Amino acid sequence: MASSSSSSSSSTIFFGRFIDAPSANDLRIRTGAVLVSRKDGSGVIEKADWTVNGPNDAASKLGVEAPVVTAGEDGFFFPGFIDTHIHAPQYPNCGIFGKSTLLDWLETYTFPLESSLGTSASPMWANASSPDPLARAKTVYSRVIARTLSHGTTTASYFATLSVPATNLLADLAFKKGQRAYVGRVCMDLAETCPHYYRDESTEESVANARASIEHCRAVDPTGELVAPIITPRFAPSCMTSTLSALGDLAREQDLRVQTHISENVNEVALVKSLFPERNSYTDVYDHSRLLTPRTILAHAIHLSSEEMDTIRARQAKVSHCPASNSALGSGFCPVRDLLDRGIDVGLGTDVSGGYHPSILDAARQACLVSRHVGFVRGGDSRYNVGVTEALWLGTVGGAKVVGMEGRLGTFEEGMLWDAQEISLGRDVAGGEDADVDVRDGGVDVFGWETWEDRVAKWLWSGDDRNVVRVWVGGRLVHELKSR
Amino acid sequence: MASSSSSSSSSTIFFGRFIDAPSANDLRIRTGAVLVSRKDGSGVIEKADWTVNGPNDAASKLGVEAPVVTAGEDGFFFPGFIDTHIHAPQYPNCGIFGKSTLLDWLETYTFPLESSLGTSASPMWANASSPDPLARAKTVYSRVIARTLSHGTTTASYFATLSVPATNLLADLAFKKGQRAYVGRVCMDLAETCPHYYRDESTEESVANARASIEHCRAVDPTGELVAPIITPRFAPSCMTSTLSALGDLAREQDLRVQTHISENVNEVALVKSLFPERNSYTDVYDHSRLLTPRTILAHAIHLSSEEMDTIRARQAKVSHCPASNSALGSGFCPVRDLLDRGIDVGLGTDVSGGYHPSILDAARQACLVSRHVGFVRGGDSRYNVGVTEALWLGTVGGAKVVGMEGRLGTFEEGMLWDAQEISLGRDVAGGEDADVDVRDGGVDVFGWETWEDRVAKWLWSGDDRNVVRVWVGGRLVHELKSR
Repeated sequence: MASSSSSSSSSTIFFGRFIDAPSANDLRIRTGAVLVSRKDGSGVIEKADWTVNGPNDAASKLGVEAPVVTAGEDGFFFPGFIDTHIHAPQYPNCGIFGKSTLLDWLETYTFPLESSLGTSASPMWANASSPDPLARAKTVYSRVIARTLSHGTTTASYFATLSVPATNLLADLAFKKGQRAYVGRVCMDLAETCPHYYRDESTEESVANARASIEHCRAVDPTGELVAPIITPRFAPSCMTSTLSALGDLAREQDLRVQTHISENVNEVALVKSLFPERNSYTDVYDHSRLLTPRTILAHAIHLSSEEMDTIRARQAKVSHCPASNSALGSGFCPVRDLLDRGIDVGLGTDVSGGYHPSILDAARQACLVSRHVGFVRGGDSRYNVGVTEALWLGTVGGAKVVGMEGRLGTFEEGMLWDAQEISLGRDVAGGEDADVDVRDGGVDVFGWETWEDRVAKWLWSGDDRNVVRVWVGGRLVHELKSR
Repeated sequence: MASSSSSSSSSTIFFGRFIDAPSANDLRIRTGAVLVSRKDGSGVIEKADWTVNGPNDAASKLGVEAPVVTAGEDGFFFPGFIDTHIHAPQYPNCGIFGKSTLLDWLETYTFPLESSLGTSASPMWANASSPDPLARAKTVYSRVIARTLSHGTTTASYFATLSVPATNLLADLAFKKGQRAYVGRVCMDLAETCPHYYRDESTEESVANARASIEHCRAVDPTGELVAPIITPRFAPSCMTSTLSALGDLAREQDLRVQTHISENVNEVALVKSLFPERNSYTDVYDHSRLLTPRTILAHAIHLSSEEMDTIRARQAKVSHCPASNSALGSGFCPVRDLLDRGIDVGLGTDVSGGYHPSILDAARQACLVSRHVGFVRGGDSRYNVGVTEALWLGTVGGAKVVGMEGRLGTFEEGMLWDAQEISLGRDVAGGEDADVDVRDGGVDVFGWETWEDRVAKWLWSGDDRNVVRVWVGGRLVHELKSR
């Protein structure tokens, strides 16, 4: 944590320990230096050298004079996390879900909060400071971006709300704060299932609003490199068939990303069956609307049939696994191994606020735990186990595949974007009985005998935002832990 | 967080919001003041007054002049957590368990670490500072006590190791640091299942070592109020039948607490069946040895038959539910509702380091999540759900029952011990886009419209040791968050 980069410089050298997970079973630990150039604005690793022995050695080996950012001896650089499924407007409800499950949770907790960011009449904010819905949205969205950045999330695929102005504000804020973000204006318009106070009135209105927010995102970031729009039907049961088809056409017309939910809860699956009797399955509803594409993110995917998985694989659609949410709402266990074995790309999502926590590190932890449950339920079969490396791979490389950024995000290679977090595990536990605990330094305790594999495991199981010293997106410093 | 108590004073007034969970569905939120007297050394709530309106009002209403400790407006006093099952020597292994399950986890990770605190020959500590096993034990035990206190754990039922000197050291340190602790020297001596480097040689040696550590605990704290011994056969498969019986006799002879494991893992259950073919069940092994008493803590209790639950209920033995460990080691799902419905007392345990985290707040969170899995596996039956209040009740009142301190610990009532934590949730999220995140202030975000029930839910789901401002055991301040 020695010298820090000058933001005006077009190049920066990063020196220290670099850890990444290029495959599910490979935790790669290297020491060296990388040169990151921002001269074209994108912040790419121009060169890497794994023979560099010290910060002073870096410039000559890399052949360039540039400021050197050094990771602490007690830590490492790690690829930024990718949250493939998060509802920005639901952030204030984190932890507030009672004993509900998906469908009553939406009615009781979610729709009132989401709608309150678009309409002034909201009893829930009566005692709070902001009567203006856009002011509320600014507070909530600013906070969720700042929080997720502080947890090392460099890319997030956001569901916003039905409100176009609030959705546009989310895009503005993500761009300003420098988080890589896919921003989706939520479409829902089926009168049977959507509350009267929170739905589009017609397919035309849904599509027009979607187009408006797409245009705004493109105006904010014409490159689509940092902020980009994503077509976002909430889920099949909240959309008219005509709307699903129109959104499918729009996605194809403009080659856009798509995100939605699939097969999260057994009652939801039954509802889809009753609403779409002419379709073979939940998956078929989306497939029929041309919403299953290689650029589609399907959240949850818990209760899929084997045929549905085959269809998803055939369409090369991706899955966002949201274990914390699935456990919290009692949705069930996603059989991640079955999806991976079939060749379906899987990443992790926090699913705030079905998920109670904005951290992908926590999602990785929960992915490990839930995988043990899958194994237990299937007769103690250990092949379902997701271990530490695989969970971190899902949260980085897996996420990159899911959001269509494979080869550009997720590991440290020449040519890839510098979306990274610097992790510090803190000093080793001092000997003797007077060893003091300062909880502000974090929860990871290293005793000195641990390998780096052990330390990474400790980070996964007891680390949190206190260990995230600095975060960069596209080479830009976007979060820094306040100094001690 | 205004004035602080003087440790020389025999009485202190605590003023502010008091939250506790006197029953599984009752989250009690009161404002007022309590008078805590330490004149007999035990730190008991002498008087409570829920009509007190402010700190200045407290002395006159309570009829005594004493220093006033005030909880912040953004927080509350909460009963100290009770960790009914924790292995102190395993703390350095938190998060290090790979993809193992119980029996291979013991061999691979646990026995080498535990034994290293009693014998100098330990390859694992070769690169660390301490060649002296007792020095290692001092470092590890000091840290685990400091960490658990910082997470609000005021009482812990500890498994130590086979080493009598190291176990005695744990008792010394707990007493010195002021944590209420039951300290058990681990007995294991079955040559078939215990490693040659880590076992007692005979029943006589097991019992003699148990007696030695019991005597030491009693010398440390003759009242048994703060530190007390507990008979600790590791679990049936590691003990000779004669040892189990001898320990049962010793428990009865001296009216001692007992702690052990039961029915954690299906392979372990099968092993018990093969080792004790003459017994009807795992429970029967303990019952036959007179180890099932009203003062017995049984950790895990996942795979019990209905008959076994009946026997445990009949003997009034208690269960320590360790959800984080059960998930991490793929042990299965403890059906807490079935145990409670039958009238069995249940508390929470971290089970460090089968459990990866030393916090009971985390255990409470995992208890909620695992209960959803139980419900899901049983056809979506919501009656298995453990909610926020019930989880907190398990971690306090439930724990008090499990460790035999019902009516003395777990809620705020006159006559009960002042084992408490002061929780701060921090300032409400500021409005606007520049709202800054200082992660050192914790992870709970309150937006201003939340009820106190909501805020407690947020604490459970996103709180941690950063929210624990101060901790008292028996009226003594034992942990304080370092000032900002």
